[in-house]
Amino acid sequence: MSKERIYLFDTTLRDGQQTPGIDFSVEDKVLIARMLDDLGIDYVEGGYPGANPTDTEFFKKKRTSKAQFVAFGMTKRAGVSASNDPGLNALLQASSDAICFVAKSWDYHVRVALGTTNEENLESIRASVEATRAASKVAMVDCEHFFDGYKANPDYALACVKAAYEAGSRWIVLCDTNGGTQPEEIRRIVSAVIASGVPGSHLGIHAHNDTGQAVANSLAAIEAGARQIQGTLNGIGERCGNANLVTIIPTLMLKPVYADQFETGISPGKLAGLKKLSHAFDELLNRAPDPQAPYVGSSAFATKAGIHASAILKDPQTYEHVPPEAVGNERKLMVSDQGGKSNFLVELRRRGIQIDKEDPRLDRLIAQVKEREAQGYSYEGADASFELLARRMLGGVPEFFKVESFRCMVERRYDARGNIKTVSEAVVKVTIDGETHMSVAEGHGPVNALDIALRKDLGKYQTEIEDMWLTDYKVRILNGGTDAVTRVLIESGDSSGDRWWTVGVSDNVIDASFQALMDAIVYKLVKNREVIRLAG
Amino acid sequence: MSKERIYLFDTTLRDGQQTPGIDFSVEDKVLIARMLDDLGIDYVEGGYPGANPTDTEFFKKKRTSKAQFVAFGMTKRAGVSASNDPGLNALLQASSDAICFVAKSWDYHVRVALGTTNEENLESIRASVEATRAASKVAMVDCEHFFDGYKANPDYALACVKAAYEAGSRWIVLCDTNGGTQPEEIRRIVSAVIASGVPGSHLGIHAHNDTGQAVANSLAAIEAGARQIQGTLNGIGERCGNANLVTIIPTLMLKPVYADQFETGISPGKLAGLKKLSHAFDELLNRAPDPQAPYVGSSAFATKAGIHASAILKDPQTYEHVPPEAVGNERKLMVSDQGGKSNFLVELRRRGIQIDKEDPRLDRLIAQVKEREAQGYSYEGADASFELLARRMLGGVPEFFKVESFRCMVERRYDARGNIKTVSEAVVKVTIDGETHMSVAEGHGPVNALDIALRKDLGKYQTEIEDMWLTDYKVRILNGGTDAVTRVLIESGDSSGDRWWTVGVSDNVIDASFQALMDAIVYKLVKNREVIRLAG
Repeated sequence: MSKERIYLFDTTLRDGQQTPGIDFSVEDKVLIARMLDDLGIDYVEGGYPGANPTDTEFFKKKRTSKAQFVAFGMTKRAGVSASNDPGLNALLQASSDAICFVAKSWDYHVRVALGTTNEENLESIRASVEATRAASKVAMVDCEHFFDGYKANPDYALACVKAAYEAGSRWIVLCDTNGGTQPEEIRRIVSAVIASGVPGSHLGIHAHNDTGQAVANSLAAIEAGARQIQGTLNGIGERCGNANLVTIIPTLMLKPVYADQFETGISPGKLAGLKKLSHAFDELLNRAPDPQAPYVGSSAFATKAGIHASAILKDPQTYEHVPPEAVGNERKLMVSDQGGKSNFLVELRRRGIQIDKEDPRLDRLIAQVKEREAQGYSYEGADASFELLARRMLGGVPEFFKVESFRCMVERRYDARGNIKTVSEAVVKVTIDGETHMSVAEGHGPVNALDIALRKDLGKYQTEIEDMWLTDYKVRILNGGTDAVTRVLIESGDSSGDRWWTVGVSDNVIDASFQALMDAIVYKLVKNREVIRLAG
Repeated sequence: MSKERIYLFDTTLRDGQQTPGIDFSVEDKVLIARMLDDLGIDYVEGGYPGANPTDTEFFKKKRTSKAQFVAFGMTKRAGVSASNDPGLNALLQASSDAICFVAKSWDYHVRVALGTTNEENLESIRASVEATRAASKVAMVDCEHFFDGYKANPDYALACVKAAYEAGSRWIVLCDTNGGTQPEEIRRIVSAVIASGVPGSHLGIHAHNDTGQAVANSLAAIEAGARQIQGTLNGIGERCGNANLVTIIPTLMLKPVYADQFETGISPGKLAGLKKLSHAFDELLNRAPDPQAPYVGSSAFATKAGIHASAILKDPQTYEHVPPEAVGNERKLMVSDQGGKSNFLVELRRRGIQIDKEDPRLDRLIAQVKEREAQGYSYEGADASFELLARRMLGGVPEFFKVESFRCMVERRYDARGNIKTVSEAVVKVTIDGETHMSVAEGHGPVNALDIALRKDLGKYQTEIEDMWLTDYKVRILNGGTDAVTRVLIESGDSSGDRWWTVGVSDNVIDASFQALMDAIVYKLVKNREVIRLAG
């Protein structure tokens, strides 16, 4: 039996941007659009061109290759023709494959918020959809407040859906804008829309998590016949967030009740990268991943209870609702490091480091990693530092150079003209083969000054590190107060196209940065000696 | 029409204890039991007396006054009589009102995990329930793996429920132990149990969040006829957590689809304390509350979008699915470059700042906020800095003191014994009423040293800031590289219990920290003059 296709529509870059504390730059948006495209999402909504400079810039080019690239905007204003509406024309001119219009579908809002008539609103929907099709683009309509509108005036809410459908909108998306609708209500109302003559193959669902049921509401709509789901990465979004696609995707693909009946545009191979993608997105937002997140959280397949743990070893399937590998996650038994040891062996082998399972150095390495992670180091995000730690334990890293001392200074004062002036300076003293090299540099801030000074004179190694540069720098405070422990992660790159992450931890942000900078340089020197095979 | 009663069963102290990273002491348990009892929960499950010293100690006394105090444990072992089973007898002797037995209801587990026969398992259930009733306690049975068991062998799963019911168990709780069952399956299977002759008034639901649907699964069971819900505070629990009672309670009490039909043991007055309770519980766990938590998160009623914000002012009810006050939360219109003029007016008024909509200073303030947010400032997370910016624009902040200059130094070198030593020092020069004050301090890192030096001698203001301290510090790098722009957010507190956030932005982390520290101190001085009304 052929399966029915469910279409996935991502609005991370539009509704996700409404999350308090989240502001994407154009570069962030480019990166995220690429992640979504690569995952196999059908529609990537990029923002609202014309509404702000970032989104206008972002829509100067098409930003996806496989996915349909979607611009969001309002339907044409009442009282002007489509061709005379500047907002609509900005939308039509943006580089997108499709336009998703937001339209009122609750008569109360048509009157109070738009200040127009019910018929004019229907006409705006029709004219906007037609203008989009005339521009050879795919049209979609988000019916705002659809479920509340339906409860207040079902005839008018249905008339809005029909106006969009009859004008040729590919999708009409039923939005639970307030986020307060319950799954049973979603099921009943979606069924009523389909019974009124609009086919489910043209209906989508847009759910919010205000009662913790955005995922259930999305699935209830699918069960009732809708075939498109709108959501975001990690469920970001206004108030309590949007439907979490990172939860919905594996549920559709792995739970028999859906997987037997439906298919998505996502391959099992891409599904196996889901945990990595979810964590990379959190990294980009500079926030810690939720350990209890369904499917992708570090605790999602962790077992603490002694009774369960031994049963899991007997028969994992009865205690795990899906295989953790399917989403790129792994089983964690918190009572025994048996599973841990084989993980380490796999991780070391992946880097070309062969060591026997019974080698006592392996136990020492595991103990050291555990101790350092307890201090705040995080090797999950710092591959190169982990590899250096392992190679040092196994005796494979020479002492190329030694930093005898460094000093960083930041001074802020008023200059002769009364302007504030801030200067950052660093001095570094390095010994190489018994010879001392001193370097001094100014920079934008103390860490930048230290970085420049460190790489200014490494004697005979200097030519080797000329093609290396820092590409990213992240700081996370691990507990409260200015005397808290600080973790610094640094990404470095070189002209070969390689990228590597290193980590430093200290109660002093400069010291933590120094550790990560040192690891980055040493890793580059080891790599140049072709000892290291860069991990995928 | 009289409403049907839904009973709430809290397992924070038992299943919640399975959360990775959570370990309650006896004192913690006493505190939490009191919070639950006060809230109006019907059943408080305290743990497993006999299984570990903490739980054994905790069950030496009854720990609730109104709520039934419940001990958890296994049914009697096969092959011994109830009176000869030491585990069962420890349970019977614990100071509890009720015992909740965990029982296998999947024949596969009876055979593989228990190594006994189906009939012996039924006999264990019956004998354990009867012994509990003979000891004048209320009996309950958690049917482990009930839904998976029902799918594999419905007759046997039903036989277990019936054995418990017929022996006189007050509640039989259907457990989705793996957490993978979907709401529609829950609904179908609970209905089948009721159709088999066990009344819904004796059935409970125990759901896990492995597909993000623990709340929806719990409510689906209620809709199918079950009348007891098991869950935890803030949804803590093994793997992805248990059903979140903090989400379920307001949904049952405030959403008409449930509230018209059901009632709980919780009063509207206690519901209004829910946000406070949820945050107090996070405080006890030493973790930051989730800003996006349904109902109780600080963002749950926050609006960033300008178009929505002006509509909310016209008619809050159409944009808020429940009144925020009902759960002790509040409406928030975020000040951000997406916000419109009406956001600003509301936010200023909330701080006691009256300004006319047509006042040109309002436009200048909005322009300044937009310009600074484009530079990287984020005022939605830094209330106090926003308020200072507004008050400065409107002429309300005196120049208490002036920092003429500061200098921070970090030095790392080897001491005489060859140990690495890192020292951070800061020097600050401040002018107050024409008089210069110089202070120097060492700290854990340059920011800590600067903080200590800044607050060391503020002359005539010194006594005013003695009761002030920093409670949190966050660093965010806004784009890549060590020369990137850095945003620092600082939370401060004082002995009155107030908390306030300030922000600084610079390409220099020290400079950004300095700005945020300065705002924090100035805000405290302004606040002391009672000019400021602290928000929420």
